[in-house]
Amino acid sequence: MGKTVEERLMDLEKRLATLEEKQVKDQVALVVFSEELDRVMAAFIIATGAAAMGQQVTMFFTFWGLNVLRKQKLYAEKDWLSRMMTLLSPSGASHLPLSKMNFWGIGSKLMVEKMRTKNVATLEDLIKLAQNLKVVLIACEMTRDLMNIQDEELISDVESGGVGAFLGEALDCRLTLFI
Amino acid sequence: MGKTVEERLMDLEKRLATLEEKQVKDQVALVVFSEELDRVMAAFIIATGAAAMGQQVTMFFTFWGLNVLRKQKLYAEKDWLSRMMTLLSPSGASHLPLSKMNFWGIGSKLMVEKMRTKNVATLEDLIKLAQNLKVVLIACEMTRDLMNIQDEELISDVESGGVGAFLGEALDCRLTLFI
Amino acid sequence: MGKTVEERLMDLEKRLATLEEKQVKDQVALVVFSEELDRVMAAFIIATGAAAMGQQVTMFFTFWGLNVLRKQKLYAEKDWLSRMMTLLSPSGASHLPLSKMNFWGIGSKLMVEKMRTKNVATLEDLIKLAQNLKVVLIACEMTRDLMNIQDEELISDVESGGVGAFLGEALDCRLTLFI
Repeated sequence: MGKTVEERLMDLEKRLATLEEKQVKDQVALVVFSEELDRVMAAFIIATGAAAMGQQVTMFFTFWGLNVLRKQKLYAEKDWLSRMMTLLSPSGASHLPLSKMNFWGIGSKLMVEKMRTKNVATLEDLIKLAQNLKVVLIACEMTRDLMNIQDEELISDVESGGVGAFLGEALDCRLTLFI
Repeated sequence: MGKTVEERLMDLEKRLATLEEKQVKDQVALVVFSEELDRVMAAFIIATGAAAMGQQVTMFFTFWGLNVLRKQKLYAEKDWLSRMMTLLSPSGASHLPLSKMNFWGIGSKLMVEKMRTKNVATLEDLIKLAQNLKVVLIACEMTRDLMNIQDEELISDVESGGVGAFLGEALDCRLTLFI
Repeated sequence: MGKTVEERLMDLEKRLATLEEKQVKDQVALVVFSEELDRVMAAFIIATGAAAMGQQVTMFFTFWGLNVLRKQKLYAEKDWLSRMMTLLSPSGASHLPLSKMNFWGIGSKLMVEKMRTKNVATLEDLIKLAQNLKVVLIACEMTRDLMNIQDEELISDVESGGVGAFLGEALDCRLTLFI
């Protein structure tokens, strides 16, 4: 070796600082791409579970996932294509379809009924719980722009951000999922 | 600086212990949400590949994914909705639909036939291989309760667990996927 | 304690080397399983974003995802099943369906038109950008073999690899998603 104790200590301190900087943090990031009730439920169950276990959780809603954050549909000041997409979109968390066995919404309604009798939290409960647990909800800017989704169409306490905002979190996370 | 060698060593040892504790482990966790043959095949190919490379692998089956672990359908002691869901579910790994080109099961059967001629392992082979490689299969408790799926409906050597069990593994994993 | 300074330094150096070896690297790996325009767009937006932020990005195209890398369809020297699958597959990045509101391709075309007017990069642009940013595109060998997809059917600068190639990257990544 030939290095002095001082040199070895300085080398260790430098390498350790690099490791600490690159280390994953106690953070979780979920991309919610889908609007289906079953998938979105899974996302919020994982998000609230992780938040309850002390992780800082970010959910990034993109494409169809933005419909989860809807509270109403607005048609004014939209071109015909955006109007059509608004018309064909579910009007919020309480109107999402199932990915299977939906049967024009009947399956989805029956599933929600079943969850009530089994004391499983509904999606609306889970969204409130997530917000209480400081889960950060981000609406994808590009999707908002593309589908012409206005502020008044979204529930409150939702941030807007692009892929950079998502990656800024996700690259430091212990756990990231695309749902 | 002004710190003694002893202080610097103690500081390094402490920071290193923290890093070691927070470090990701040689573990992989997969959420299997889907019941489609093609997606489930992808999940098991990744799971068995990772296990063969020395990773400790956990697969968490939730929602429709539970049908992958089915060995039979039971109707007794279920309410009408659970019976209906059982009726509309595939009866196990050898009866899963394709996510595309399924054509009422014909596409799925042709795909399996094709895999046989190409010497690709079938899903049943992969499940056995996974169990031989000590891949842990966990059935989601909430889904089991919601869909009223009984022990006798599932293949053997399957554990039951909730989102906490999944996150307990996933937060320390090198690789986690939602499939 | 009783350990000498020399022993403690050696112990620290050894533990640090282990940590450095096991540490996640500045790498991102995405599995592209789907062929739907919306999902594939999301994959390339994340991939190019991460590459622009200095990550080394690998995209692994498997099952239907291989159609994203198609430049043409060939029918010669294929058995009837492979021909049928080729016939039913989209003929490349500019012909992918939407996962929702596709309406026999009309929805997909309208979406692309909309993206143009909003100055959102098209999928073809994003693929070129990804290649310029040195994103590695890997076509799944097993799928190629299963669906009988020949070299001349794929765009240039695409590698072939199996699950081992994917896991070799993914197990060291900061971020991995299954899309």
